[in-house]
Amino acid sequence: MSDGDAATEIMCATYRALCSHGYADLTMQDIADESSKSKAALHYHYDSKHDLLCAFLDYLYDRFVERTADVAGEDAHERLLGLVEAVLTEREDREAFETAILEIRAQAPYDAGFRDRLTRFEDHLVAELTAILEAGVEAGTFREDVDPGDAASFVVTVLTGASTQRVTAGRPVECSRRMLREYVESHLLADAEALSA
Amino acid sequence: MSDGDAATEIMCATYRALCSHGYADLTMQDIADESSKSKAALHYHYDSKHDLLCAFLDYLYDRFVERTADVAGEDAHERLLGLVEAVLTEREDREAFETAILEIRAQAPYDAGFRDRLTRFEDHLVAELTAILEAGVEAGTFREDVDPGDAASFVVTVLTGASTQRVTAGRPVECSRRMLREYVESHLLADAEALSA
Repeated sequence: MSDGDAATEIMCATYRALCSHGYADLTMQDIADESSKSKAALHYHYDSKHDLLCAFLDYLYDRFVERTADVAGEDAHERLLGLVEAVLTEREDREAFETAILEIRAQAPYDAGFRDRLTRFEDHLVAELTAILEAGVEAGTFREDVDPGDAASFVVTVLTGASTQRVTAGRPVECSRRMLREYVESHLLADAEALSA
Repeated sequence: MSDGDAATEIMCATYRALCSHGYADLTMQDIADESSKSKAALHYHYDSKHDLLCAFLDYLYDRFVERTADVAGEDAHERLLGLVEAVLTEREDREAFETAILEIRAQAPYDAGFRDRLTRFEDHLVAELTAILEAGVEAGTFREDVDPGDAASFVVTVLTGASTQRVTAGRPVECSRRMLREYVESHLLADAEALSA
């Protein structure tokens, strides 16, 4: 097994262990139990649970960048909705995992390693949405008075809120999804009046 | 000291202890250290840290209901912005405390006592905003095609997202505040076109 294969196996085991145990009670043994490795072998690769989880967040970030690059669409409007949908659906499908991630988020204020890594996800999503919005304003799909950076941050705030509410209160994201779509149509689209007529 | 005074003193001590220690590491001793009571005296009132924290969430809820009832304004538009501002400002001013509350939120999926209590805050805020929006639609301040329940849920989702992002990534709420205000003006207000003209 190459170093890369070993690292990937540990990352997959970490994913499963977080889904089963959550973050607060997670031990290196729980992760070892989900892999073919011993706890000692894990410690050979990572000094501590914290190191391993930081590496895990880096691994997730790389996957996230790949997936957000895949969003297709005929124009900026479709790409924007496609990206929003990809984020909402993925979070919805992985409930146990998103719950563990919220626990890690809640530790971020006390932990610079977690905070910096989680901020990268948000920054990347804001940057992707900003690029789509800029292209859409340029092409006349979106209104020329839209501030792409502000609108992108607002959409990410809604996605963060929807995710927090779903995980902590079991509130379905359906209403957020519909309201975001409505916001895009009535607030961002250049031909909003034609659509609503 | 009456039972009520004793309870209030313990609630204030719990607030200070959460600000200093966060939730994950909090002990009954930490709370006792912030009050005039011994740890044994705390255990006389509350069986466990969990019981005490549930009582604390109930105490916070009662304060929250009082404060949201105080929001003034000449019309529904002013009352809506006033309530949004009250929630944003309060959360901004109590950073250490909101950080501890996010930790408790992150435990909610595993803990029905926390989850039910936190859901009450959200439900109350949605209900207050819905009532303001209904009154505003009725009075012609807001557009007649606004769905008060949907719009209220959307605003609460934005507030939740802004709070999570501020606590976990240190992201200022300024952009969310401005975008929410813009959303209200362009999306909810009946005379949006007059305003933007």
